[in-house]
Amino acid sequence: MDRFYLRCTRCHTKRKFELTGRCACGGTLLVHYDLEQVAHTLSRDALNSRIASMWRYRELLPLASYESIVTLGEGWTPLIRLPRLERRLDLSEVHVKREEQNPTGSFKARGFSSTISMLHEYGITRVAVPSNGNAASAMAAYAARAGMEAYVIVPRDCPGIIMEECRRYGASTFQVNGLIHDAGAIIEQGKAEQGWFHAGTMKEPGRVEGKKTMGLEVAEQLDWKLPDVIIYPTGGGSGIVGLWKAFRELGELGWLADRRLPRLVSVQEAGCAPLVSALRDGGSVRPVPEPVTSSPTGLRVPNPPDGDLIASILRESEGTAVEVTTVEIARAQRQFGFEGLSSSSESAATLAALLQLRESGWIAAGESVVLFHTSHADKYLNWKPSPAPPVVSSYAELRQWL
Amino acid sequence: MDRFYLRCTRCHTKRKFELTGRCACGGTLLVHYDLEQVAHTLSRDALNSRIASMWRYRELLPLASYESIVTLGEGWTPLIRLPRLERRLDLSEVHVKREEQNPTGSFKARGFSSTISMLHEYGITRVAVPSNGNAASAMAAYAARAGMEAYVIVPRDCPGIIMEECRRYGASTFQVNGLIHDAGAIIEQGKAEQGWFHAGTMKEPGRVEGKKTMGLEVAEQLDWKLPDVIIYPTGGGSGIVGLWKAFRELGELGWLADRRLPRLVSVQEAGCAPLVSALRDGGSVRPVPEPVTSSPTGLRVPNPPDGDLIASILRESEGTAVEVTTVEIARAQRQFGFEGLSSSSESAATLAALLQLRESGWIAAGESVVLFHTSHADKYLNWKPSPAPPVVSSYAELRQWL
Repeated sequence: MDRFYLRCTRCHTKRKFELTGRCACGGTLLVHYDLEQVAHTLSRDALNSRIASMWRYRELLPLASYESIVTLGEGWTPLIRLPRLERRLDLSEVHVKREEQNPTGSFKARGFSSTISMLHEYGITRVAVPSNGNAASAMAAYAARAGMEAYVIVPRDCPGIIMEECRRYGASTFQVNGLIHDAGAIIEQGKAEQGWFHAGTMKEPGRVEGKKTMGLEVAEQLDWKLPDVIIYPTGGGSGIVGLWKAFRELGELGWLADRRLPRLVSVQEAGCAPLVSALRDGGSVRPVPEPVTSSPTGLRVPNPPDGDLIASILRESEGTAVEVTTVEIARAQRQFGFEGLSSSSESAATLAALLQLRESGWIAAGESVVLFHTSHADKYLNWKPSPAPPVVSSYAELRQWL
Repeated sequence: MDRFYLRCTRCHTKRKFELTGRCACGGTLLVHYDLEQVAHTLSRDALNSRIASMWRYRELLPLASYESIVTLGEGWTPLIRLPRLERRLDLSEVHVKREEQNPTGSFKARGFSSTISMLHEYGITRVAVPSNGNAASAMAAYAARAGMEAYVIVPRDCPGIIMEECRRYGASTFQVNGLIHDAGAIIEQGKAEQGWFHAGTMKEPGRVEGKKTMGLEVAEQLDWKLPDVIIYPTGGGSGIVGLWKAFRELGELGWLADRRLPRLVSVQEAGCAPLVSALRDGGSVRPVPEPVTSSPTGLRVPNPPDGDLIASILRESEGTAVEVTTVEIARAQRQFGFEGLSSSSESAATLAALLQLRESGWIAAGESVVLFHTSHADKYLNWKPSPAPPVVSSYAELRQWL
């Protein structure tokens, strides 16, 4: 039996591992592992002498050969406590997972270390991704490291520093007249002609696996005792799937003190909060109608690729979804600043959500909480490169640049 | 006997540990340890189960109580290999130490984690630092974390993103009409009246100790076999002192396969290269005459606090100092970009120096090299905050803002 294979979240069909994240039934294909085989070499004790990187969990990542690993030094980021906030909010523990200390300054490094490693194993040489920014620069860096050609398409209001970073890694960089799903549609249209592998959220099975290592690390860093609540900034939502998968796999391996899932909380920004609507109203996740007015950050994903999967995970964990305003985010950025943390909007949104949930009593006195600090603020300052990358509205227009 | 004490690099007088880095004779006071006492609890084996942070080496840092540690998750940064560059330059190993993955995005986090911890232990509540940028934001973050008031003064051409970052951490932030030593003079003048602790380079013994952990980590990450050459971007030079101290202490502990020092190379930018002049001409390090025309980066320190100490270390290690031009730096930034690394000028300067030294044969075929990547490029984009921090020419002017 192979160490890993795919299974559909909707029709539950199992299939041999391949480079796709979509099932014919419309469901998402996730990687499953033969955990007995994994446990032959991976144990809690074995981890003590492993590298301080997400690749310490290599048996739980979908590579046939570890020779294929494309690494820039990602993962095993610090988990730090905020004692002043604990006292103020009467919580037993508040931890921040500092994902901005990854290569390329964001949590996106994990997903692309695993995906680009996987594509490298399969001999792929041209990759494209639609992104709000951080995924674009992460993919550009890992593609450069692997010697692949990278194409990235971001919205026009993407922070200039991020676009400049993509170009520094040698990626062909474009702005779309539209939002992230419009960029995705252009890549879908052009991929056959250009020979692009489309590495968008949940288009392939590697990104979720890379993000899963965030959950594995939180568990290990907390000595295998999960917190009561995890608050995660949610756009496409593959991070939520990753955390859920991590805790399931650790539970099945028998490593957790208590197999109960932490209550998972998605935080979104008011104006683009499809998960918040679905959890409040019940039923399916519906696309946010245009015009979408929220800020140009990683939270702005009006039509997540498999919103229902995210919603089902939040419900299963007895979690919730919370929307926060730009004012609440700005206030949380100041509060994080006074703790010595430079926070992007997405990162600060987790603190804004914590304040709401503690105020309402949804998080009770004495509970323990982990906040995900996904990137630092520097990338988001309103700086425009000169000349800016080309702006396109369609694949036909983009084609003229290729 | 205390675990640690001070000794002057010039007159060699020993004295009890205190918060000063300057000896009456004009020499620099460095921390020395009772290594027998250290070895009771710290061993190579003991490190296997220590935290992935610079505080894994806590016995080799000058705190009386580990309760005093002020941490934001600094150190134990990745050391990654560049196989394409190894092949191209016919070198056995080229590693990059990714210091930009520290909190606040630079190696300066280490020095301020140790110094602010030490000041915290002594009950200091107001700190000030002159800086070209990265030290300012690092001090601002650690001071915030410790609940201290921070005052930072940077040159007017300091990147706006860094000034903005300082303010986000709540630091009182000023620009000086002049260079880093002018900022230092203002702090010297105001420190009695304002009750500031002056945390400038080599004003106190903690920063060098924090930076020393870079050397401890390189040794441990290379399994206690030091490289032939280390290239380090040098402004004030406390990093060079830190590396040298690290290797001396590890040698005395008996942990190194070979006690010979790596050849230490300081890289500086043409136009502000006092160490290069001193090593070429022999004799003392002399201040660079005004006007200083090099770029506004951490390399621009025309009058290092103890240049002769740095020069003597470079000579002792059979190392050298190299100057590189802005054009060479820009070319190296592009080359690092294609390896997936986003490099500040200082970081890219190390690659520019490697190319020069390999070309000249000073670094021979088959040798191993470590480059220090001290910060990422994002901080240096030419962005100005609005309104910019106040500009001052003297303490009298600054005083009006306090």
